[in-house]
Amino acid sequence: MEITSTNQEKTQSNFLKAMFENLKVKLKDMAMKTKKIGEDDPRRILHSIKVGFALTLVSLFYYFRPLYDGFGQAGMWAILTVVVVFEFSVGGTISKSLNRGGATLLAGALGVGAEYLANLCGERGEPIVLGILVFILAAVSTFTRFIPKVKRRYDYGVLIFILTFSLVAVSGARISEIMELAHQRLSTILIGGATCILVSLCIYPVWAGLDLHNLIASNILKLSASLQGFGSEFGNVVSSKDVRDKSYLQIHKSVLNSKATEESLANFAWWEPSHGRFKLNHPWKLYLNVGGIVRQCACLIEILSGCITNSKIQVVSEFEQKIQPSCVKMSMECGKALKEVSTAIKNMSSPPSSVALHLINSKAAADELKNIMENYPSSRNEADLQQIMPMLVVASILIDIIKFVEKIVVSVNELAEKAGFKQAQLLHRGIVKPVNNDDDDQLVIEIGEMKKPIGVGT
Amino acid sequence: MEITSTNQEKTQSNFLKAMFENLKVKLKDMAMKTKKIGEDDPRRILHSIKVGFALTLVSLFYYFRPLYDGFGQAGMWAILTVVVVFEFSVGGTISKSLNRGGATLLAGALGVGAEYLANLCGERGEPIVLGILVFILAAVSTFTRFIPKVKRRYDYGVLIFILTFSLVAVSGARISEIMELAHQRLSTILIGGATCILVSLCIYPVWAGLDLHNLIASNILKLSASLQGFGSEFGNVVSSKDVRDKSYLQIHKSVLNSKATEESLANFAWWEPSHGRFKLNHPWKLYLNVGGIVRQCACLIEILSGCITNSKIQVVSEFEQKIQPSCVKMSMECGKALKEVSTAIKNMSSPPSSVALHLINSKAAADELKNIMENYPSSRNEADLQQIMPMLVVASILIDIIKFVEKIVVSVNELAEKAGFKQAQLLHRGIVKPVNNDDDDQLVIEIGEMKKPIGVGT
Repeated sequence: MEITSTNQEKTQSNFLKAMFENLKVKLKDMAMKTKKIGEDDPRRILHSIKVGFALTLVSLFYYFRPLYDGFGQAGMWAILTVVVVFEFSVGGTISKSLNRGGATLLAGALGVGAEYLANLCGERGEPIVLGILVFILAAVSTFTRFIPKVKRRYDYGVLIFILTFSLVAVSGARISEIMELAHQRLSTILIGGATCILVSLCIYPVWAGLDLHNLIASNILKLSASLQGFGSEFGNVVSSKDVRDKSYLQIHKSVLNSKATEESLANFAWWEPSHGRFKLNHPWKLYLNVGGIVRQCACLIEILSGCITNSKIQVVSEFEQKIQPSCVKMSMECGKALKEVSTAIKNMSSPPSSVALHLINSKAAADELKNIMENYPSSRNEADLQQIMPMLVVASILIDIIKFVEKIVVSVNELAEKAGFKQAQLLHRGIVKPVNNDDDDQLVIEIGEMKKPIGVGT
Repeated sequence: MEITSTNQEKTQSNFLKAMFENLKVKLKDMAMKTKKIGEDDPRRILHSIKVGFALTLVSLFYYFRPLYDGFGQAGMWAILTVVVVFEFSVGGTISKSLNRGGATLLAGALGVGAEYLANLCGERGEPIVLGILVFILAAVSTFTRFIPKVKRRYDYGVLIFILTFSLVAVSGARISEIMELAHQRLSTILIGGATCILVSLCIYPVWAGLDLHNLIASNILKLSASLQGFGSEFGNVVSSKDVRDKSYLQIHKSVLNSKATEESLANFAWWEPSHGRFKLNHPWKLYLNVGGIVRQCACLIEILSGCITNSKIQVVSEFEQKIQPSCVKMSMECGKALKEVSTAIKNMSSPPSSVALHLINSKAAADELKNIMENYPSSRNEADLQQIMPMLVVASILIDIIKFVEKIVVSVNELAEKAGFKQAQLLHRGIVKPVNNDDDDQLVIEIGEMKKPIGVGT
């Protein structure tokens, strides 16, 4: 009897132990993941604290000073506004606050009008007229949310418009003090919205515009890292970091899917006031242009990385040995050009003239490659087409990449001009010898006040 | 004097005329655009009508039967729920309704607890304790919204949780009838949510799941149309429709950017009940798998269309004439395979065995191509590498596309198996001669109960 109970106890304690262990592992795992989210972007932690702060502020304000008819109605709308309106970025918060305020004002006025109209129709006609008006306004407003421009900028406003209009139109039938209600509602929304805007502006502001700016710069840098990675791979140039490190094959992946993020950041940035070196009319749309071309270039790099993953690029034949240096140079120079473009964006200056030099170098390498190809086969014992095919495709894609890098430079130059970036400092004035590892072709180019890359016919 | 006034009148009337004309053109333009939005997807018009209907229903219900303490409080929450919760798809509406209901229940209970705890601390301690509790809960909840899984499924719930908790915790300090308030709030939300769900379910329901299913099928069809367009272009096969029609170069573009849409549809689909031939546990995640591979394939097609736009593919040299039929066949057969896969998805059946035949045909063409390349240059007077380069790159990309088409078929087969699609009808049993235009290679393949494409080493 005793032994059985001891056994039972043992089983039980074992079971509990296992459960505890399991729970411990799960909790630890969750904690690790949560920690990572905070570490990835510490501003997230700050944002959470800011929301808590704004909400506590408004709550306590209404707790101590119940406005108008007790806390219920008025304070509720202030709390509601803070919870719904406070977004991660300043632009998001301002956009939602203004949308909410404007829509409430407009819908309130229309609601009063509807109420007045319905009153004219007598007691029997009133609900019918109100019903019809609510139906028409809700249906039409909902439809406008499908119009891209409205959806992009005023989606939340339309929602609040429908909401407020219905509330005012229908509630008006019971309470006659619509005007006071409207005053109350607007003042609470104002307090809630102003609290959000002030907190998000004054305590470590997160600017959607700056985020967009940095995102574009870092996306270009990622392409640069990929291209330089390919360059090392082709040339077997083993630098200190890149020893058998294939991570560069993955860097560009996130660029492929950044369209939605870029667009929402650009939408929010439109609402932001002048901050830092960004003026009120900063050309945010041009960032989307640059982003689009960067994504097309990332598409090419995706194919390139596919070529490298699928078929080990071998430099065996005489022909491959001949074109290898050109391939290395093309990807390295393109990578360098993009890196400088990215740095220029980061520093808010227009791309330096050395970018044009890198482009010229990469184009020289492309021409070299074309020369070699024209003379193929130079001898009878060269490898067949089937064998050199992977290398040829890589070379062709690299030539295409040069074109896209040029497009990126042109679009960034346009952006720099429109946004008033500071002029790039000319590193060298007068005669400049391009950075060139080969001694046999010494391109000598005169650089004056060159701003745009030198267009070279493809 | 008279003449001057007549002149003035004339100028005025001219000005008014011009203004009217201008307004007329603008209004016409706007009407055209709006009409197009409705025509693109007539369900949008239906959705707008449904929202208006649900809102009118709830408004009038509360207009005629003011529950509890007059219209103000209770009816307001029902209207608010309808406006905020009614989404385009059934899944979206259910997701938001359940999130709202669940979060309100949970936050209400916690709010009562917080209120009880604060009461214990005396009149002076109460606001401090409440303030601290609101701060902590708001900050922690806001942070959880950054966790991807929470963001995907419960973002709206967390928002409502913060809102309700703050309201209950702070308002409780004034009103003692929290329990009644909670009952009232929940019942109104229930009525609002139920109205939305019923209206969106019963009147021409828009299923996010079905939309996702059709989107994947139509994306695959788009790739197929692109590939068949390329095939015609390469082969100069002028069909009745394709005369100088370059629109096929654009078809695949929308596929490249469909990731965000697919993901949001899959999220909503998860909430939908069993509908049509979609069961409750339909493997929606697998659609995202297929979608990802389809997008990679679209990336290749983007490069291919770039090749064709940039450099006119010329079939001049002997070599190019040799590889041209293979290229035509590869893209045509891949296009046909994708078309059949798309049709199979549309009909909810697993891809038919003829898909495997098309794959075999396209691989045979690829092998043929490799043969030709191995023997290059077969004669001395052939074009140089530089000249045949565009055609070579096209050929190489087409070979890559075959691999992706195979991957698409495999992933669709997996989907068909997990989702319980009906078995494809075998068109031919026994010995089958593949569709093959060339007479010189008669592949004869025995097809039994083949479901997966025949794996051929690359």
